[in-house]
Amino acid sequence: MTMKTNVLEPSQAQIKKWARLTESVIRREEGMFPAEGVKVVEELLSGRWPVRAILLLPEKIKYWRKIMAKVPPEIPLYGLTRPQWQKLSQDKEPEGIMALAAMPPEKPLAGDFAFSGGNILILHEINNPANLGALLRSALWFGFKNIILSTGSVDYSHPKAVRASMGSLFHLNIAGNADLKKILPEIKKTCYLIGSNVHAGRAPHFLPKKAALLLGSESHGLPDDLLAITDEQWNIPGSGSVDSLSLPQAAAIMMYECTKK
Amino acid sequence: MTMKTNVLEPSQAQIKKWARLTESVIRREEGMFPAEGVKVVEELLSGRWPVRAILLLPEKIKYWRKIMAKVPPEIPLYGLTRPQWQKLSQDKEPEGIMALAAMPPEKPLAGDFAFSGGNILILHEINNPANLGALLRSALWFGFKNIILSTGSVDYSHPKAVRASMGSLFHLNIAGNADLKKILPEIKKTCYLIGSNVHAGRAPHFLPKKAALLLGSESHGLPDDLLAITDEQWNIPGSGSVDSLSLPQAAAIMMYECTKK
Repeated sequence: MTMKTNVLEPSQAQIKKWARLTESVIRREEGMFPAEGVKVVEELLSGRWPVRAILLLPEKIKYWRKIMAKVPPEIPLYGLTRPQWQKLSQDKEPEGIMALAAMPPEKPLAGDFAFSGGNILILHEINNPANLGALLRSALWFGFKNIILSTGSVDYSHPKAVRASMGSLFHLNIAGNADLKKILPEIKKTCYLIGSNVHAGRAPHFLPKKAALLLGSESHGLPDDLLAITDEQWNIPGSGSVDSLSLPQAAAIMMYECTKK
Repeated sequence: MTMKTNVLEPSQAQIKKWARLTESVIRREEGMFPAEGVKVVEELLSGRWPVRAILLLPEKIKYWRKIMAKVPPEIPLYGLTRPQWQKLSQDKEPEGIMALAAMPPEKPLAGDFAFSGGNILILHEINNPANLGALLRSALWFGFKNIILSTGSVDYSHPKAVRASMGSLFHLNIAGNADLKKILPEIKKTCYLIGSNVHAGRAPHFLPKKAALLLGSESHGLPDDLLAITDEQWNIPGSGSVDSLSLPQAAAIMMYECTKK
């Protein structure tokens, strides 16, 4: 096993800049976001997203040793002190490895997005980052490789979204800030568009076509004008003795049905 | 709308006792646990679990006014100051209502548990309280009214479990501290026992029988000696490009299949 040993010492200015990446606007400005934890960094290194740097907490070497062999030589490694780490980390018990992932440039959402392989998951004004992360993880599992986030959705680079996704996002095509009213009719040209509706609709069922699944936020669901564009609305039958199934669970069931053989 | 106005002032000793309910051992000792938030308190009041007291943050009256009409007159109401509240609350932005729910006495798990209505969800050494709460919420949705927790599982009265369950637990029969090796053969007399297996097994499918669904922890899955007792093992097909589907999502899909019509 080859092991890089040239661990750099970060400057005060670097630490200060990295610590500000907790803010969404700074992440966009800098074009990067932190991805913390062994599993998340492993997924990043095995995907196609560029990596700006790897940060390490030297005392936790046992947690990150096995993944160091996968780090390309051109990516700088920084060793941080514990006080420095605490300025960046969201974990009480840090695993001691974090990457700075580069944000892919926002491409305008072209029609050909709908033609690329895999199903499409479309999220309207999802505001809970942990829910978003959970949705991304399930999406990758069920082969929904294309993710479209509406304007007003939580940032996929939010630390809680990255964490809950377990690094799944690094294997997905994610387009943000989309105007769904414009895009959904385009998507319908190649996909069967299903909207989730907690009030009414058909039970999820076998679908012999390429699917685009549209979901709203846990608090508000989908607005009527978007539901009106869908080909079909799905509603998961239940006892009705609770308000609703939680969003990540409902989404997993619908994606499961869409991809069932 | 009738509105109780006799809001009591808690003693220092009461605040001190209630603040210690963050500890599992103290919750068992006192036989009660805090249930925070409008939704959770509403579910508690609409269920069959006894309530010891309702705690209020007077400045947040708009959040709890509508549920006060449902509080039976024999339940004491306490008004807390904000510093007192912060000692008990898990929320940064509290809704300002919390109940002290009485823990039902632990009954030894008798054979007749398996005979009562509804399917059964059996959890082996689940250690993440938020996952447990999510599982309880889905269980209620799909009519898995009976929950069995193995020895070594996280306490269902953990604040994060109560919160994630959205109060679902107050409508379920929950038996804790169960010796699964002893109990599973009993359950098989009346139920078809399905075990979740991330490595192998059949795809979930229609089941014309009463189901008992056995799940292990997200990190370890089910041990072989328990899998060996099951009638059938289920594995959710996926792209395989991630390690696994998360536990609450996998559980929701399996419960959904068990109760499909």
